[in-house]
Amino acid sequence: MQRTESHACFGGMQEVWQHESGTLGCTTKFGIYLPPQVREGACPVLYWLSGLTCSEQNFITKAGAQRYAAEHGVIVVAPDTSPRGVGVPDVEGYDLGIGAGFYVNATQAPWDSHYRMHDYVVHELTGLIEAQFPATQARSISGHSMGGHGALVLALRNPGRYRSVSAFSPIVAPSRVPWGEKAFTAYLGEDRDAWRAWDACELVANAAERLPLLVDQGDADEFLEPQLQPQRLRDACDAAGYPLTLRLQPGYDHSYYFISSFIGEHIAHHAQALS
Amino acid sequence: MQRTESHACFGGMQEVWQHESGTLGCTTKFGIYLPPQVREGACPVLYWLSGLTCSEQNFITKAGAQRYAAEHGVIVVAPDTSPRGVGVPDVEGYDLGIGAGFYVNATQAPWDSHYRMHDYVVHELTGLIEAQFPATQARSISGHSMGGHGALVLALRNPGRYRSVSAFSPIVAPSRVPWGEKAFTAYLGEDRDAWRAWDACELVANAAERLPLLVDQGDADEFLEPQLQPQRLRDACDAAGYPLTLRLQPGYDHSYYFISSFIGEHIAHHAQALS
Repeated sequence: MQRTESHACFGGMQEVWQHESGTLGCTTKFGIYLPPQVREGACPVLYWLSGLTCSEQNFITKAGAQRYAAEHGVIVVAPDTSPRGVGVPDVEGYDLGIGAGFYVNATQAPWDSHYRMHDYVVHELTGLIEAQFPATQARSISGHSMGGHGALVLALRNPGRYRSVSAFSPIVAPSRVPWGEKAFTAYLGEDRDAWRAWDACELVANAAERLPLLVDQGDADEFLEPQLQPQRLRDACDAAGYPLTLRLQPGYDHSYYFISSFIGEHIAHHAQALS
Repeated sequence: MQRTESHACFGGMQEVWQHESGTLGCTTKFGIYLPPQVREGACPVLYWLSGLTCSEQNFITKAGAQRYAAEHGVIVVAPDTSPRGVGVPDVEGYDLGIGAGFYVNATQAPWDSHYRMHDYVVHELTGLIEAQFPATQARSISGHSMGGHGALVLALRNPGRYRSVSAFSPIVAPSRVPWGEKAFTAYLGEDRDAWRAWDACELVANAAERLPLLVDQGDADEFLEPQLQPQRLRDACDAAGYPLTLRLQPGYDHSYYFISSFIGEHIAHHAQALS
């Protein structure tokens, strides 16, 4: 494991690390913000999953999360959004292949050789963070758009693993919208029954635990109707009796300007569950 | 004048505008953050000057300034760092030509045809902001590295125009360091006497007013010794009796992670002078 960046930030350190991932079969990078409190002892961890086209850089350079992580004493880990590099399958377009791992374990060739972002984030990365950094086993998870889908699905699929979950502009029902249909067909195959295990609106019906769940969605988001449809999550949570705080933020779009405006409230949400 | 971006952010709007600049002889862009307070009336303006290689995008996407601008009710305007586009002279390298205007009015061919960033920022841009946006004539100025030099020089050359000045990691004595020597030779010519009017350490000796002046410098900045040398500003201010708050921030580097950590204190510094 090799540190490729290290910057003082809000009294702590924003670092980027690179390592060989056995799960992904490639070299991958993640960002980690270590708040000043790590000098006193281990801190809890918030995992952040980014959206389509992103690498480990977007969140750490644009969201302004470090200020709040430093206030609350939370480590923030931001992995890449897919495997990447020589030998990793890819196609034309921004919504499949590199930069678009969708946080699933692919079962279909050629994707199944590398695209195992679920197992990478939940198992390999988490194990590495807790072994190599001053991190406790208290974990929360959040993300944006494709990464909002990832946060919801990873939390719902892995009861006992996370203390809280949140999302910005998540793809809540990938089985029913173009981005998800394209990705799931490629990664999981034509059989839609196999998709249910990777769809937050399906998973919430049988959720084994109730986590604090906060979702923010801008009402000026160009992807709101075609791809995001938060009402589907509202309906699924209502039907399952799953408590959901869903906030429609007037005038906000799909950008990091939106994320930066509310990431402080999301980190406070997680810090409360993690403390 | 055409708006090319508009994003809700911390209750206000982060916009990008494009216009034909007569001063620069090209199309140019600037970012403007309009805090929520503009809905109640005109607000004062902080001008931000970015460093080498930057466009109008770097500061608005990475500094996290909008939160503090919204708290204090300050408009923040971030121009490009040089003229740009078809017909604008350029050379190989990051530290001269496009992305490296150094906030001077060039006197030497071929640069004198477009490179007039001083007059653009001080006159054309300011006039446009105060005519087209809900801005008062209360102005402050800040910047980073080459833009820190720009902020100091524009404030010192134009008494009565700004209420306060600050800088992150500024090039305080461009006449005496490689970045400045290269740029000033090209833009201003071989005669070093002509450089004195564009060098903060020279200008401070004859400053016509005393503005609140705050400078932050990271002590882990790779450019600290070769290019920045803040002690020269300390000495020049001491000799002139010019009050300077110079803070050496331990462990911080030259990046936006440093700027984001202290931009809140800089905006508070300016807001006090602007109120």
